[in-house]
Amino acid sequence: MTELFSFELKRQDKAARTGVITTPRGQIRTPAFMPVGTGATVKAMFPEDVAATGADIILGNTYHLMLRPGAERVAKLGGLHRFMHWEKPILTDSGGYQVMSLAKLRRITEEGVTFQSHIDGATIHLTPERAIEVQCLLGADIQMVLDECTPFPATREEAKRSLDLSMRWAERSKAAFARLGAPGQALFGIVQGSTYPDLREQSARALMEIGFPGYAVGGLAVGEGQQSMLDMVEVTTAVLPEDRPRYLMGVGTPEDLLGAIARGIDMFDCVMPTRSGRHCQAFTWSGRLNLRNARHAEDTRPLDAESQCPAAQYSRAYLHHLVKSGETLGAMLLSYANVQFYQELMARSREAIAQGRFAAFAEDVLRRYQSGGED
Amino acid sequence: MTELFSFELKRQDKAARTGVITTPRGQIRTPAFMPVGTGATVKAMFPEDVAATGADIILGNTYHLMLRPGAERVAKLGGLHRFMHWEKPILTDSGGYQVMSLAKLRRITEEGVTFQSHIDGATIHLTPERAIEVQCLLGADIQMVLDECTPFPATREEAKRSLDLSMRWAERSKAAFARLGAPGQALFGIVQGSTYPDLREQSARALMEIGFPGYAVGGLAVGEGQQSMLDMVEVTTAVLPEDRPRYLMGVGTPEDLLGAIARGIDMFDCVMPTRSGRHCQAFTWSGRLNLRNARHAEDTRPLDAESQCPAAQYSRAYLHHLVKSGETLGAMLLSYANVQFYQELMARSREAIAQGRFAAFAEDVLRRYQSGGED
Repeated sequence: MTELFSFELKRQDKAARTGVITTPRGQIRTPAFMPVGTGATVKAMFPEDVAATGADIILGNTYHLMLRPGAERVAKLGGLHRFMHWEKPILTDSGGYQVMSLAKLRRITEEGVTFQSHIDGATIHLTPERAIEVQCLLGADIQMVLDECTPFPATREEAKRSLDLSMRWAERSKAAFARLGAPGQALFGIVQGSTYPDLREQSARALMEIGFPGYAVGGLAVGEGQQSMLDMVEVTTAVLPEDRPRYLMGVGTPEDLLGAIARGIDMFDCVMPTRSGRHCQAFTWSGRLNLRNARHAEDTRPLDAESQCPAAQYSRAYLHHLVKSGETLGAMLLSYANVQFYQELMARSREAIAQGRFAAFAEDVLRRYQSGGED
Repeated sequence: MTELFSFELKRQDKAARTGVITTPRGQIRTPAFMPVGTGATVKAMFPEDVAATGADIILGNTYHLMLRPGAERVAKLGGLHRFMHWEKPILTDSGGYQVMSLAKLRRITEEGVTFQSHIDGATIHLTPERAIEVQCLLGADIQMVLDECTPFPATREEAKRSLDLSMRWAERSKAAFARLGAPGQALFGIVQGSTYPDLREQSARALMEIGFPGYAVGGLAVGEGQQSMLDMVEVTTAVLPEDRPRYLMGVGTPEDLLGAIARGIDMFDCVMPTRSGRHCQAFTWSGRLNLRNARHAEDTRPLDAESQCPAAQYSRAYLHHLVKSGETLGAMLLSYANVQFYQELMARSREAIAQGRFAAFAEDVLRRYQSGGED
């Protein structure tokens, strides 16, 4: 009998891996990139187009959705999938990161975190148990434990104290999920430990002791720099079990993704393709482009001749005109093309790993991004 | 041999008409509604979706496009159709209306109009000849003579003086078009005359004397009120030849369109469906809806169950959430659904006219808009 939620590792190429996560709502081919649907929408994209890019799963933000429209309301309306017209899997974060980055007047105790909504100033209490309850109300297929996203920089002592709290919260999250989670849903643990290799290892082992069907690497891409981030990834994936998916949270550029895949990461999420799309930045197979740049004004070449995306077939001259004019269609086309680029980057990575040539593939892309990009 | 540009009147139902305009780029079923693509984009819509709504033709704004990206640049890039990914017919206005409504420091002489760009303050000269040159550079299938959009209100003397100038400009526009226009392109005249029935008639006869393959009714929907607008339409269409299409410029609400169709109008353009879409207003087969209204917050019904539009299948609760959150997808879905509603209104009007039951059809829609709408 097949498990409702499972991960099959198909092939390794040094530390890089390709596999398939199976959920009741469909399969997720790894390495996988999850477009971010913060407020129940991947910004400026129709959900059908998000699916058309090849995305197997998207991410929803617990913090945003619990504030607006509210988890109980989403549940009443039939759950997040139905609400936002997305039938494939959804992963929800636990809100820990957003509480740190967006909320005001936050106070952290053993019990949980109290903060003011950045929307209307309302006082909100978030505990590990409530974070799971919210994610279950949303109906998320993959849920995340509530953690404290350790601020950067942190002294070793601060990082250790924060990590220990996160590990106790992880245990409480798992207990809550055991009561509230539906069959086929999965809860992932989150490794913390700032930039201290021994704390990262300690955190990973503590989570493995509790036991999760998947493990995330959290608290990175917060200012530590790419090399330090990749070092922490390497330390962590060396400890994590091979038969569970590994998810690097909130990362990153194409270069970051390739570096993390090379170190054994299976899943990513990031606002970069959509946020960049709204800020005139394109990711293409010939590197980065800033469409505001006047050099594109009479360039009739398509945005990305190598991309399969319909949006990437529009001319650079037209996209330049749209972004210069502040037209919404500019953000729509660039968001679409960027998300598609990220999915194509994952698809080609999977193929390269399956064929044992990931290092050469990554080197080729990195070269394009070093020399081909104009910015 | 078929003419490159032609109009075939298929059926009349009292004064209401249905027919087909044939152009080298395709047929236009009338009554036709032209979505407005001001700056080479129907705002917040993919061109494929504009086509999917059933639109046979869109409108481009000469004024906007000559300022940005510039007519010569569009020509260099292969023309407006290619630039904006729209292969079907395009009608361009002549810029007269926008000069009146948008430009600063305008000065009108017999020669033409001088104004400051609302974008960068540059001084621009627009003559009847230059307006045609710009439209030919854009490659518009249907072009409009440069006219002075008579301000409202105007004394009879002001209206007469303005009208006479517009008629002289119409003659110069036709002469320029004879030199510059491509085979299959058509130039329409524009009837002015403010709210004076005898001036409207005089203007129509003067244009017919010059001779155009189509006639527009201009200078309306500028504050005169619906009844006065429809009265002027009725006076004008009574004079215009039956075998030429008639286009009411810049109009309007569903109620306006039905009233004008009943008085013999064949073509419309208006920013209303897209602009309303960006301002949370929906046009549906059960009337107007304001999606910001809290009553929609938990309404799982689709926006418009009677519409064929994919965008109209999203729940009112979800659309309410999107517009409350300021999400771009809200504007994208409502613009799409509104443009589709306008196209369905035209399609049903054509069918009703063909079956000799237009009056009953219009009455039914007006009733929905009087009682069904919430706002």
